[in-house]
Amino acid sequence: MNEEEKNIDLKDLGEFGLIERLTKKIKLFNENTLLGPGDDAAIINSNKEILVSSDMLVEGIHFDMAFTPLKHLGYKSVIVNISDIYAMNGTPKQITVGLAISSKYTLEAIEEFYDGILLACEKYKVDVIGGDITSCINGLTISITAIGEAMKKEIVKRSGAKENDLIITTGDLGGAYMGLNVLQREKEVWKSNPNMQPELDNYNYILERQLKPEARRDVIEFLKKCDVIPTSMIDISDGLASEVFHICTSSNVGCQLYEEKIPIDPQTYQTSMDFNTNPTVSALNGGEDYELLFTINQKDYEKIKNDPNLTVIGHITKKSQGINLIGNGNTSTPLQAQGWNHFNK
Amino acid sequence: MNEEEKNIDLKDLGEFGLIERLTKKIKLFNENTLLGPGDDAAIINSNKEILVSSDMLVEGIHFDMAFTPLKHLGYKSVIVNISDIYAMNGTPKQITVGLAISSKYTLEAIEEFYDGILLACEKYKVDVIGGDITSCINGLTISITAIGEAMKKEIVKRSGAKENDLIITTGDLGGAYMGLNVLQREKEVWKSNPNMQPELDNYNYILERQLKPEARRDVIEFLKKCDVIPTSMIDISDGLASEVFHICTSSNVGCQLYEEKIPIDPQTYQTSMDFNTNPTVSALNGGEDYELLFTINQKDYEKIKNDPNLTVIGHITKKSQGINLIGNGNTSTPLQAQGWNHFNK
Repeated sequence: MNEEEKNIDLKDLGEFGLIERLTKKIKLFNENTLLGPGDDAAIINSNKEILVSSDMLVEGIHFDMAFTPLKHLGYKSVIVNISDIYAMNGTPKQITVGLAISSKYTLEAIEEFYDGILLACEKYKVDVIGGDITSCINGLTISITAIGEAMKKEIVKRSGAKENDLIITTGDLGGAYMGLNVLQREKEVWKSNPNMQPELDNYNYILERQLKPEARRDVIEFLKKCDVIPTSMIDISDGLASEVFHICTSSNVGCQLYEEKIPIDPQTYQTSMDFNTNPTVSALNGGEDYELLFTINQKDYEKIKNDPNLTVIGHITKKSQGINLIGNGNTSTPLQAQGWNHFNK
Repeated sequence: MNEEEKNIDLKDLGEFGLIERLTKKIKLFNENTLLGPGDDAAIINSNKEILVSSDMLVEGIHFDMAFTPLKHLGYKSVIVNISDIYAMNGTPKQITVGLAISSKYTLEAIEEFYDGILLACEKYKVDVIGGDITSCINGLTISITAIGEAMKKEIVKRSGAKENDLIITTGDLGGAYMGLNVLQREKEVWKSNPNMQPELDNYNYILERQLKPEARRDVIEFLKKCDVIPTSMIDISDGLASEVFHICTSSNVGCQLYEEKIPIDPQTYQTSMDFNTNPTVSALNGGEDYELLFTINQKDYEKIKNDPNLTVIGHITKKSQGINLIGNGNTSTPLQAQGWNHFNK
């Protein structure tokens, strides 16, 4: 974008002009996208089952523009949505992108945001097939619908966990939440003294977990390769505890989670300690890790046990035994599903 | 809802509690909806082509809570989205509903809004298969993705209009815009004197056009029955002029529209005159009528000519002849596509 273009006002460009500018960069990757943006509706087809998931991200609730680079925000908006498709053991194929933009955003800012959207789409081979762009009074609201596909027999719901199944999480947990804590702390420091440089050097890993998460396509592909279909699955967006509750409630079962098994990165652990937060609590109740939580039949354990991305953290029990966390001293406490309540913000 | 329930705070209920309350009323109508709300993604299938369209409605931009009943708003939110599916000559089957709700809204208000959503879904046999609910700082933002299906050979894009095709509109135009004008006038009157009763009795038709529009399923079914597939089609959401431009630009053609043919209801006409607005301008540039604008090959004219819902308003020409409005005195003026620019609000 040249200097002159930077000064283009969204008002002058108008809705159609902005849509035209943004959509001309779109590349389509999937053969089953028959018609992309530009008509009343996009056209796709599939000889598999189709998966659909929608999410909204609202400025001031889900993200803080004080420390969120716009390109990262665009990227993350796609990730949180396609993560839901992977959580069904499916492959994301298309998204629609709805944006409500207030007048504080420049064309340059919106293009940067959209570049992040397209970067994630390129990486995950997902097509932007439509959406809507409008103005709004305050802030920025992002609404994405992700569409994917899966063979019927491969689809994994939350409701299929059975007694004695193993509970597995991918990656490590609590990092995105601790990254958010660091960013919020530095924002407060900056507010009291704008000349202060933020101290972020030691937090690369957890900042990336917060600002530029990835979806676990690799794990879904690995499971396919191993011929393992989980009995239940969910993505970890609201914290491990909340997702364990969803699986147990949907599957009508109980579980035992082992505190010592919960994978926590050393940086997450240390930062948690520095913030006087029990690292297990960060992992259980911190959101936005976008790892996958799933259950498998014990007979499948041999096939996946050597994968370093996967950690067995517990097993499914009868419903009557409750949903319990086995502490490091072998104590058993009923787990509380705290999760996020955006209405309390 | 009993008196006690009316006082439930959204904060206390939380995101999951609200979702549970709203989704328990959902009925599924379509066999191809294999899994509705409650998992990471919904599951549908289809042996036809799938149509996808997304729209956002933002308080203060698209609707004014001073005069929009919440149930009507819910109803209209569905209509504006499924209208896009009909505009592809398809049948809407599913929607996802994303809501960002600020704290001024009570549980009662949100349930009323959702009742409107479900009423439209019941009427048009559309399934709510998912969505998202979150809080926001100000106002209410509604994001709906509509999914429909159509046989490949039946799908009608904007781009198929050919020279000599007839241009047809359904219903009548400009009514929704004049309804909005009346509501805005009465709001101003009320603001200057809150004891004044609004004068709305003589405006039933245009108020309904604005507050509770319908989608033209009847016309799509009629065309199927007559074995007529339009050569191009679009729904009239931004005003006739804007939609004519979309069709002509996408199809690489020009057109002649006849001012005297544009169908305008007597109430729209009279109200326009009272507001010192040329009724033709209301029809050309007023949005939100949600009628269908389409073109047909002349050979199909005989099959549909007796339908009172359809009016031939012009014909397609070569691109070089331009996009023209033939005035009542047989004058030809190039049409201006004004449409809505939400960024100018």
